Amino acid sequence: MQLLASYLSGSWSQGQGPRASLVNPATEAPIAEVATQGHDLAAAFAHARSAGRRELAQLTFAQRGALLASLAKAIHGAREELIALAVANGGNTRGDAKFDIDGGAVTLSHYAELGAKLGAARILGDGEPIQIGRTARLIGQHIWTARHGVAIHINAFNFPGWGLCEKLAPALLAGMPVISKPATATAMVAHRMVELFAPLLPPGVLQLLVGPAGTLLDHTGPGDVVAFTGGSTTARTLRAHERMIAHSVRLNIEADSLNAAILGPDVDLASETGALFLADVVRDMTQKTGQKCTAIRRVLVPAGTEAAVFDVLRERLGGIVIGDPANETVRMGPLATAQQLRDVREGIARLASETEAVFGGTGEVTPVGVPAGKGYFVGPVVRTTPTPLECAALNDHEVFGPVTTVGPYANDAALAAQFIARGEGCLVSSAYSDDRDWVASFVGQAAPWLGRLYLGSAKMAAQSPGPGTVLPSLTHGGPGRAGGGEELGGVRGLHGYMQRTALQGDATVIKSLLA
Amino acid sequence: MQLLASYLSGSWSQGQGPRASLVNPATEAPIAEVATQGHDLAAAFAHARSAGRRELAQLTFAQRGALLASLAKAIHGAREELIALAVANGGNTRGDAKFDIDGGAVTLSHYAELGAKLGAARILGDGEPIQIGRTARLIGQHIWTARHGVAIHINAFNFPGWGLCEKLAPALLAGMPVISKPATATAMVAHRMVELFAPLLPPGVLQLLVGPAGTLLDHTGPGDVVAFTGGSTTARTLRAHERMIAHSVRLNIEADSLNAAILGPDVDLASETGALFLADVVRDMTQKTGQKCTAIRRVLVPAGTEAAVFDVLRERLGGIVIGDPANETVRMGPLATAQQLRDVREGIARLASETEAVFGGTGEVTPVGVPAGKGYFVGPVVRTTPTPLECAALNDHEVFGPVTTVGPYANDAALAAQFIARGEGCLVSSAYSDDRDWVASFVGQAAPWLGRLYLGSAKMAAQSPGPGTVLPSLTHGGPGRAGGGEELGGVRGLHGYMQRTALQGDATVIKSLLA
Repeated sequence: MQLLASYLSGSWSQGQGPRASLVNPATEAPIAEVATQGHDLAAAFAHARSAGRRELAQLTFAQRGALLASLAKAIHGAREELIALAVANGGNTRGDAKFDIDGGAVTLSHYAELGAKLGAARILGDGEPIQIGRTARLIGQHIWTARHGVAIHINAFNFPGWGLCEKLAPALLAGMPVISKPATATAMVAHRMVELFAPLLPPGVLQLLVGPAGTLLDHTGPGDVVAFTGGSTTARTLRAHERMIAHSVRLNIEADSLNAAILGPDVDLASETGALFLADVVRDMTQKTGQKCTAIRRVLVPAGTEAAVFDVLRERLGGIVIGDPANETVRMGPLATAQQLRDVREGIARLASETEAVFGGTGEVTPVGVPAGKGYFVGPVVRTTPTPLECAALNDHEVFGPVTTVGPYANDAALAAQFIARGEGCLVSSAYSDDRDWVASFVGQAAPWLGRLYLGSAKMAAQSPGPGTVLPSLTHGGPGRAGGGEELGGVRGLHGYMQRTALQGDATVIKSLLA
Repeated sequence: MQLLASYLSGSWSQGQGPRASLVNPATEAPIAEVATQGHDLAAAFAHARSAGRRELAQLTFAQRGALLASLAKAIHGAREELIALAVANGGNTRGDAKFDIDGGAVTLSHYAELGAKLGAARILGDGEPIQIGRTARLIGQHIWTARHGVAIHINAFNFPGWGLCEKLAPALLAGMPVISKPATATAMVAHRMVELFAPLLPPGVLQLLVGPAGTLLDHTGPGDVVAFTGGSTTARTLRAHERMIAHSVRLNIEADSLNAAILGPDVDLASETGALFLADVVRDMTQKTGQKCTAIRRVLVPAGTEAAVFDVLRERLGGIVIGDPANETVRMGPLATAQQLRDVREGIARLASETEAVFGGTGEVTPVGVPAGKGYFVGPVVRTTPTPLECAALNDHEVFGPVTTVGPYANDAALAAQFIARGEGCLVSSAYSDDRDWVASFVGQAAPWLGRLYLGSAKMAAQSPGPGTVLPSLTHGGPGRAGGGEELGGVRGLHGYMQRTALQGDATVIKSLLA
């Protein structure tokens, strides 16, 4: 069986000590192993700080962008192989796998293009020169420069391909070397990508740690950045880490998120806007088996429309074939790990104690093409409550699977915004309405709780990717429960890996620095 | 004796429990007291969250700016009274007091003008619309909206007036209600300012807690912002606070900073640039008795120039009259508290173990106009080391008083940048040179470790405020040891109190929201 190696200090090493198995979550068959100890992390940090930083400092934004373009090309060249790994190791359908892998390539290409646009510079200007003296001779000018340190990327199990790329692209373009740590259970896609990327990059620019993080954070210092995507329990551990606190290590977190979808009071379910709403809810429940940090978990509909919404959801969800995604008829695969299955079942039980069943009971399902009793499967589950703003199980706990809860409201935009706020900070939420006054009132009140707000309407329905898709040009992150972080958003994504400095001095000197 | 009250939930209340004394640090005479317990902080948070936020949400940026203008005017109207309080309670000379109080008014006025410029809006746009669909119909647009929560401001003892205003102005303009907590020992200026401000502001917009923070942070939630200026020990406690971690409460920290000044290899001490360098070093040692978070603590000069630099420093510092700042001949007052005196003496002893004396021995001084043995006085101290990059006492510990250490270097910009980096993150540093190539090489390498970089040169010398002055138009903060935070910087200062949200939807709808 393949023993996945880590790529550290310029070479592939398999580590030592006890091994952990990676399995096919549809069949529970072991497909690879990782060793959990024995890597020299101090040497890896030193390699990044010396070789990695020196190499990147020599490159302009355009040259770093060209490297990113070569990585995107490498993904395209190995696309079928990567899709097969995602199906086998992630429980992904082919569509799920493409969403992850193509999403990674798109993000690399976006930052490759941004690099070309930023051109021959290594410093970013921030705003215009500001006169700070009696005459225009003395000015202030804000600039961004690459932080002197290492970017540590700790990724989630659900997007091994996209997660690697969406953190790597802005860090590398900004000028920081990266040590990337995928979630162990689904590491095969990221591992293969780094096998493809490593020969294309200068030494020290990208390293990969497969297996437990171990003492990774013990090596961090004041110039470093740690970017984490995952659950709130791990997020708390990172925040409280002694070395992170002592050195003000920059920490970006994307954690739990109880994303909501609001159906506006003006929307007929049979209209284009209504159809968009229903399609988005069903897609977010079933794509990646609901294992998207951006998926809709909470749905609010005008009081009186619940029954019609339930009818459509029952019909659509009832037609989803669940099973081994290697089987071509399958539309929804298993959850990624046994632990995820335990967590989702526990979450459904918690919801069941406060809500009523609409579809799917507690998620029991007989999957297609799977040995009896095997696989981490759960079926789509819709629950409902008459009092969605008061329901703690709905608003305080994210169930990371194909589960959503629907409740009514009295059409008021302020109530809808209160429901958004009840999630205490989300990565994204969506509202579906063609009533501009209602939308304007809602946006002003809801936006402070959201990293992204998707406004579904008839005029954009035909070309919408849905709220669950993260685009490289728009920021990704959210306040409060969602972790308080921010990634991507075009050039904004670079800022997380750079230091803003206010330069003060003679106008001619400062302008020549940015020329 | 005056018992300073807190302004909470719309009224002034004196609290209960044991009392702490505020003293005149020149004479140690008690001049006021505060009670350390008995305030209903839960009610104060509720008042901010309900009344304060509602009032601010109704106001446009222009209207909030007009409020800030009225506060600046109130300071001007009570300027002499405030200066007298700063002299008596802060050990400030009249010049020190004006620096604090006028600095506060200038900052309020800056944000008042920004409010007028932002006009009738309540939402800030961020960048241009981005086409994200097949056609220009589907766009993304980033916006900033005021966070739904309370801004908790915990200020340092050294700038009670400016500290209150520089945090209040951007928070209030952004749209967040404030609870401000000055350092207890020097709270009289902030207390008087809030007495002046309170009648000018809508209910709940500004509250004041005088005395210990107590359980202040236990009331924070996911929409809140805590902004702290002070020492690294308290900063660590804030970062590790359970509720802050659990709710991703946004935390902005300005902590210790070993700011450096670098004399370029091209500079003759007798030149305009040389004179600027010497004046800036002497000002930063003596202004506020060296108790500025932006003061120069570390000085690097070309090898061979040390003796000439020492001659000038000895002459200038020897002429400084130290004593009770109520005495008009006095140019430098005491440190603010007994604890600061202990800390500075300990810091000088630590430096003495690794450096040689140049001026002022260990800071013993006989102050003018002070009862024998009274007051928290220390004289200016200059130390030197032949190996400034290796000296731990110099680079690892901030001595928050009139103390600086000078060392030589071999003229290389890379070495100068390494010296900056050795501080592990500074609020500000300065370089003095008229050699553009040297400056360009230095800036690229040093900027990642600095929140602000002051470039002293002949052409700007005549109108320079020195590196120690924080301007509202430029960001204030620094990476690593300096806390990793950022304040001010014009509109950038508002962002710390707002949430960035990526809107996605129909172009016409989104453009109408920002119109």
